[in-house]
Amino acid sequence: MQELLLIGIGTGNPDHITGEARRAMRCADAILIPQKGPGKEDLADLRLQICDAILGADTARIVTFDLPVRDERVGYVAGVAAWHDAIAEAWQHAAPPDLQTVALLIWGDPSLYDSSLRIAARLHPAPRIRVIPGITSLQAMTAAHAIPLNAVGRPVQITTGRRLREDGWPDGMDRIAVMLDGDCAFRTLTDQDRYTIWWGAYVGMPNQLLFAGPLSQVSDQIVAARSETRKAHGWIMDIYVLERRG
Amino acid sequence: MQELLLIGIGTGNPDHITGEARRAMRCADAILIPQKGPGKEDLADLRLQICDAILGADTARIVTFDLPVRDERVGYVAGVAAWHDAIAEAWQHAAPPDLQTVALLIWGDPSLYDSSLRIAARLHPAPRIRVIPGITSLQAMTAAHAIPLNAVGRPVQITTGRRLREDGWPDGMDRIAVMLDGDCAFRTLTDQDRYTIWWGAYVGMPNQLLFAGPLSQVSDQIVAARSETRKAHGWIMDIYVLERRG
Repeated sequence: MQELLLIGIGTGNPDHITGEARRAMRCADAILIPQKGPGKEDLADLRLQICDAILGADTARIVTFDLPVRDERVGYVAGVAAWHDAIAEAWQHAAPPDLQTVALLIWGDPSLYDSSLRIAARLHPAPRIRVIPGITSLQAMTAAHAIPLNAVGRPVQITTGRRLREDGWPDGMDRIAVMLDGDCAFRTLTDQDRYTIWWGAYVGMPNQLLFAGPLSQVSDQIVAARSETRKAHGWIMDIYVLERRG
Repeated sequence: MQELLLIGIGTGNPDHITGEARRAMRCADAILIPQKGPGKEDLADLRLQICDAILGADTARIVTFDLPVRDERVGYVAGVAAWHDAIAEAWQHAAPPDLQTVALLIWGDPSLYDSSLRIAARLHPAPRIRVIPGITSLQAMTAAHAIPLNAVGRPVQITTGRRLREDGWPDGMDRIAVMLDGDCAFRTLTDQDRYTIWWGAYVGMPNQLLFAGPLSQVSDQIVAARSETRKAHGWIMDIYVLERRG
């Protein structure tokens, strides 16, 4: 491949797609769709639905491939590196060799907690990389709650559930956004009365779920709703903003 | 007005606009376009060009109004509060009283360093607020450089030029994104050799300007290019990501 397009497609709502992303999808010689295995067909299906909405009957260029599975027996860092190598290889095998422009549809935006740019850097020969920004779940969530991400003139930190759990509340911050949290790290905060949370799952999709309020009051509801809907769908994408007083 | 739509429109490139934003613009009974006074016609013109691109000949619903000017003689906080009051009043006067759904086109995304949500909270009677997310300059910039915003599993802080200048580099961060920096606050960092910068201005527009490299090598080029293009256009919107080693 000569050029790899990493196309941010938002959070699963075809209405999130920008004119630039739409055009890039239509221009690509092939669009690679990963299949994540049993129980996660939802996500591949969502990408296919988005292709349908944008490309209509012109779906000849859609190429599905099996996403390699990460080896969880080796250490995290080594496991992720080997996994990214395997994904780069899978992209290269899946892309028909005579095609110039190959596209991948990225949930949210390729810049934010996404590995595509790092996987793309492993391709040989190196294609030209073009990134098309997309609406992130963070934006879909703040939009759904109609809240600003930052307080006036104040910084905001975007972090992960793991960092919040291991490092605690970051110094000097009054607001943080938490992504990639598989285990409700907000429960590990002491003084739950000091926090307000705005939480969302499946943001922008028909099954969107929102909770907001004092953490001490809504924490249990979020934990229960998260577990229940995750079971029902086989996967969950959720995100939240926390504000600390005092 | 019954409903106020705050529509994120990206950074001035009509191609940034999402399907949701496009639909919201077409459904609104009126779209309010602020006029910022002499030397800044560019920005109002850009909004009008975006309306042209989306609405075509159907421009009867566009309503321009003069944006009140912030009184810089009073303190910053009091000045901003009074200014927001005045803008809320200007929105209310500009919106034809018989119309239900009024829209504002917001650069970037209404959640990130934007005052519209705070101004909207001043409206009486309070309309329903609907936020439509848009591509931020931060996303357009990381896309243009084809870089991720965060390092793997690491947090990232989004802050302002003022905070970087007054508080220095934030503790525990290896990457930050800086917005609203009118005065090249990256010059105030000591040990310029430790930093890499990815900088962009007018990102996503035809006159996009990008610099990237070790801060010690590109800082002067950025300062010079920023001053020159600002003079040429009458305004500048720029943004950068900094990474610190060690």
